[in-house]
Amino acid sequence: MKNISIILVKPQMGENIGATARVMKNFGITDLRIIAPRDGWPNERATAMSAHAGDIVAKAKIFETIADAVADMNMVFATAAKSRDMEKPLITPEQAADISFRQQPAKVGFMFGRESSGLDNNDISYANYHVSIPVSAEYTSLNLAQAVCVMCYEMFKKYPEQGSRTEVLEPLSARKDIHEMLSFMERELDNKGFFQVAEKKAGMMINIRNIFTRGNYTEQEVRTLRGIFNAMLK
Amino acid sequence: MKNISIILVKPQMGENIGATARVMKNFGITDLRIIAPRDGWPNERATAMSAHAGDIVAKAKIFETIADAVADMNMVFATAAKSRDMEKPLITPEQAADISFRQQPAKVGFMFGRESSGLDNNDISYANYHVSIPVSAEYTSLNLAQAVCVMCYEMFKKYPEQGSRTEVLEPLSARKDIHEMLSFMERELDNKGFFQVAEKKAGMMINIRNIFTRGNYTEQEVRTLRGIFNAMLK
Repeated sequence: MKNISIILVKPQMGENIGATARVMKNFGITDLRIIAPRDGWPNERATAMSAHAGDIVAKAKIFETIADAVADMNMVFATAAKSRDMEKPLITPEQAADISFRQQPAKVGFMFGRESSGLDNNDISYANYHVSIPVSAEYTSLNLAQAVCVMCYEMFKKYPEQGSRTEVLEPLSARKDIHEMLSFMERELDNKGFFQVAEKKAGMMINIRNIFTRGNYTEQEVRTLRGIFNAMLK
Repeated sequence: MKNISIILVKPQMGENIGATARVMKNFGITDLRIIAPRDGWPNERATAMSAHAGDIVAKAKIFETIADAVADMNMVFATAAKSRDMEKPLITPEQAADISFRQQPAKVGFMFGRESSGLDNNDISYANYHVSIPVSAEYTSLNLAQAVCVMCYEMFKKYPEQGSRTEVLEPLSARKDIHEMLSFMERELDNKGFFQVAEKKAGMMINIRNIFTRGNYTEQEVRTLRGIFNAMLK
């Protein structure tokens, strides 16, 4: 992920720069480049909004032009709404993540335009690909940091991170414990006259077995179920 | 997408409610439910932040409890960080989108916790599945509206493929039927003296709720379970 950069082209609101830094850090991306921020630099609101990603805001690199900002990169993606005159291959965020990953260790940049009007054709002309995030036709304007969120999320899914947490699941009960519980239930339900029509009993037991085999219960949960049944039978 | 709801559990900041509404509309989801918003309701900052999604904020439904908010739903997903004591299948946003899509036309809800602390174990016990958004171990705390963004984006990617679903699943029971069954069990277990140590009862009920919310039961299966319990109680 250290080879991936987020490039904001003429962003207008400091809050959006801060929210961008925060979500970059959530997905393990740390290089932020900003071209001609409207309100100058540094920007207090960007720092405030970044929460625990103040380090990313603090070391953001400021440029005058796209050409300068992407000079050291190997591949650039322009994230923008679909337009009528497409000059670049139009791809999805997933495809962009896949293409950039296959190019590793290339340096890769993702450009995002200003809040009011996005990237123009001139901006997009600096990119290898035009990425369009699929959105509802009812409301196509994504917040800047939300667009960054989608791209970083797709990159993070693609690029396995070293040291990311692995889950430790509770061991499940042995199947025999489930089967014993079901036999116990069958006996007790017989005693209570639950199976009124003998011919239907087998089918009813299949239904009951489906209910309790689907649960992926831990050993403790099987004990809890047994305890519940014993209490009810008292 | 009209069968999908976003459920915010005790959200603290109006800005995040507004940003949530905006990104919901970007991805074609319109039903917003809010449980006990900290600053009351309506909330001017939510409306201001929602931009062109003011309609979603205006018709958001306010509830006191999770049980009420999800009563008419068939399947509930809890979006939360990974925890040590997992009681529910832990799935990715993609898997959640896939599972919910295969259950259509089931009514599906995605729960998100308060900004400061997320969903607690009691909240999660109302869900069928625990969804965890993959994030960097360096900074795991996603902004609320960014978490909603990732889920809505994955749903939007999945759902336009109408007609690709071939299997027809049995419709699931409404959550209120599960809640009524659990209330019935709690009452009857109380009568039987099952909860011997009063201080442990709440925790035991969370365990029991987890066992029975995970089952994806059909209406018929809930009736079967009620029949089993009634027979045992005779």
